[in-house]
Amino acid sequence: MSANPFYSQELHGPFETFDLGNFVLEDGGTLRDCKLAYATFGTLSPAKDNAILVTTWFSGTSKIMEQAYIGEGRALDPARWFIVVANQIGSGLGTAPHNTPEPFGGPDFPRVRIADDVRAQHRLLTEKFGISTLQLVTGASMGAEQTFEWAVRYAEMVKRAAPIAGTARTTAHTAAYTRTLVDAITSDPGWARGYYDKPGAVRDGLRRHSRLWAVMGASPAMYAQEGWRALGFSSVDDFLFGLLDASFLPHDANTLLLQAWKWQHADVSRQTGGDLAAALGRITAKTYVMPIDTDMFFTVADCEAEQRMVPGSELRVMHTSWGHVGVMGMDPGYLGQVDGALRDLLGTSV
Amino acid sequence: MSANPFYSQELHGPFETFDLGNFVLEDGGTLRDCKLAYATFGTLSPAKDNAILVTTWFSGTSKIMEQAYIGEGRALDPARWFIVVANQIGSGLGTAPHNTPEPFGGPDFPRVRIADDVRAQHRLLTEKFGISTLQLVTGASMGAEQTFEWAVRYAEMVKRAAPIAGTARTTAHTAAYTRTLVDAITSDPGWARGYYDKPGAVRDGLRRHSRLWAVMGASPAMYAQEGWRALGFSSVDDFLFGLLDASFLPHDANTLLLQAWKWQHADVSRQTGGDLAAALGRITAKTYVMPIDTDMFFTVADCEAEQRMVPGSELRVMHTSWGHVGVMGMDPGYLGQVDGALRDLLGTSV
Repeated sequence: MSANPFYSQELHGPFETFDLGNFVLEDGGTLRDCKLAYATFGTLSPAKDNAILVTTWFSGTSKIMEQAYIGEGRALDPARWFIVVANQIGSGLGTAPHNTPEPFGGPDFPRVRIADDVRAQHRLLTEKFGISTLQLVTGASMGAEQTFEWAVRYAEMVKRAAPIAGTARTTAHTAAYTRTLVDAITSDPGWARGYYDKPGAVRDGLRRHSRLWAVMGASPAMYAQEGWRALGFSSVDDFLFGLLDASFLPHDANTLLLQAWKWQHADVSRQTGGDLAAALGRITAKTYVMPIDTDMFFTVADCEAEQRMVPGSELRVMHTSWGHVGVMGMDPGYLGQVDGALRDLLGTSV
Repeated sequence: MSANPFYSQELHGPFETFDLGNFVLEDGGTLRDCKLAYATFGTLSPAKDNAILVTTWFSGTSKIMEQAYIGEGRALDPARWFIVVANQIGSGLGTAPHNTPEPFGGPDFPRVRIADDVRAQHRLLTEKFGISTLQLVTGASMGAEQTFEWAVRYAEMVKRAAPIAGTARTTAHTAAYTRTLVDAITSDPGWARGYYDKPGAVRDGLRRHSRLWAVMGASPAMYAQEGWRALGFSSVDDFLFGLLDASFLPHDANTLLLQAWKWQHADVSRQTGGDLAAALGRITAKTYVMPIDTDMFFTVADCEAEQRMVPGSELRVMHTSWGHVGVMGMDPGYLGQVDGALRDLLGTSV
């Protein structure tokens, strides 16, 4: 298997990598000469007190976070903040199944957990930049899972947290959804237990996977309103091919499977022997829990149940007809609401 | 391919069949010596004015409708009504892909539409029983699609209609869902373009299909509340295997695919050149549109949008955490609400 050219500086950069050396994972594997990919925006103040960490979602890289959430005049304004966007381990940029040689590459890449991402990011921030305080950690979907993990694991370091459209512990329903994503890919004979030669060999499975996002990732309301028209698509099929397939088909199947497993097993209560209330009770960051009202798996109800366990937290519901994939920012109204909430949060003295 | 023994009198009976002769379908196929399977409960009055038609859902037969919806003291009480439960053409009982010989059997079974079912049911009721008035047509899910088709196509014959958890025209979102159901099955190499030898050959695909129901058919609220415990299951996996796989795995794959296509293309506005408002405007039956509040694809919003086009109709929302599969009746509270609504409707003079 050769490295997948999709994960390039041209498409996802500029990004840099931080050398973690031999990084030992929670489940016992070691990523040798492990590279964590990240991008920064703005300038770290001399006092190192203006740092923000942004995490990434399933299949997303630092590029989409830059494009959708960061910019002049936005809540995440590089003129004011030093913003570090960290890519997930195994997400394609940096050390990942597609660029790791045998015997640890492809489907044999070691299991990675949300906690591993967060520990790696902690090393990047502290060792590379000497940062000991984060004004904000935020991210959507699996990025929210990392945000929660940060707020629990390094509570003393995180002043504010904004998990968007994601939970601290994956629910049974969402776990069932991630299983269907995995099944869609691994059922493709072209996947060949992960030992495919070229990314295109798994096209059928990746497309089936994409079409599950079309059902569960978007929302009935978006389809009823034909929200895809505003994006320039001419029909539902044009949208399915043009947005969802275009987003997912270039990816390396093993990389998506690694992330799906990580998502499936996300659980901050691994730090507290399974006691979720105890884990969330450790959070000292001022926290806005920000679900999307039409999200079909990270539902408002499930997010609110967790929010009630976070001391001093607030529930801020984002409204968009786009469902979960609204995190991609196709609805300007959604982005405006996120900016408003993050501005409020960053304006809170803690 | 040999007939699938699952569709037996022992498991689904007693049921009878009505001989439709050579039944010509909307899309041009002919089902030769076509048998429509049905069950009846109660006695037709001498004036033939106490008839109720109950239709069936995807994968469901007359048996589940009998078990969940019909009984002494229920709204659908055989002591008062003559109740005919009609199985879908191609659903397994009666003429279906699994029991039709080459060259029209298996995957080569002709396309069947909701309108074909309704036309066949109309012949059963008029030719076999001499019924010209239906006090009520009701059914859930695809049964609701048939209910709407009845109320539009034979408006003069239907005094009351109660489509439960289903729409008159399949939405783009629900069509996308049905595509994932089809993909889950047809992606199984054991399906072999429909020319499998034994039902078990498609087990992997049928299980993937079942697990999509686990995500979209149930609801996040049910999982959050661990609603499966009340049914005697010990874990989520125990529930997935014990209820959903147990329900779907015995089925003939081609039969499910035939029904999925029918569902995907359900549309009463085929009668009015695509004008949904015109089609629904033809309904003269007193109609209760009865969506389930937690249904993830036949949503309350989508059902309400159609309900507003049905003259004199009412929206009656059923409340259960079970989502769409709540139609199976595992929540006694849901069944009580359905009975209450149907009693109200049957008590309406029209």
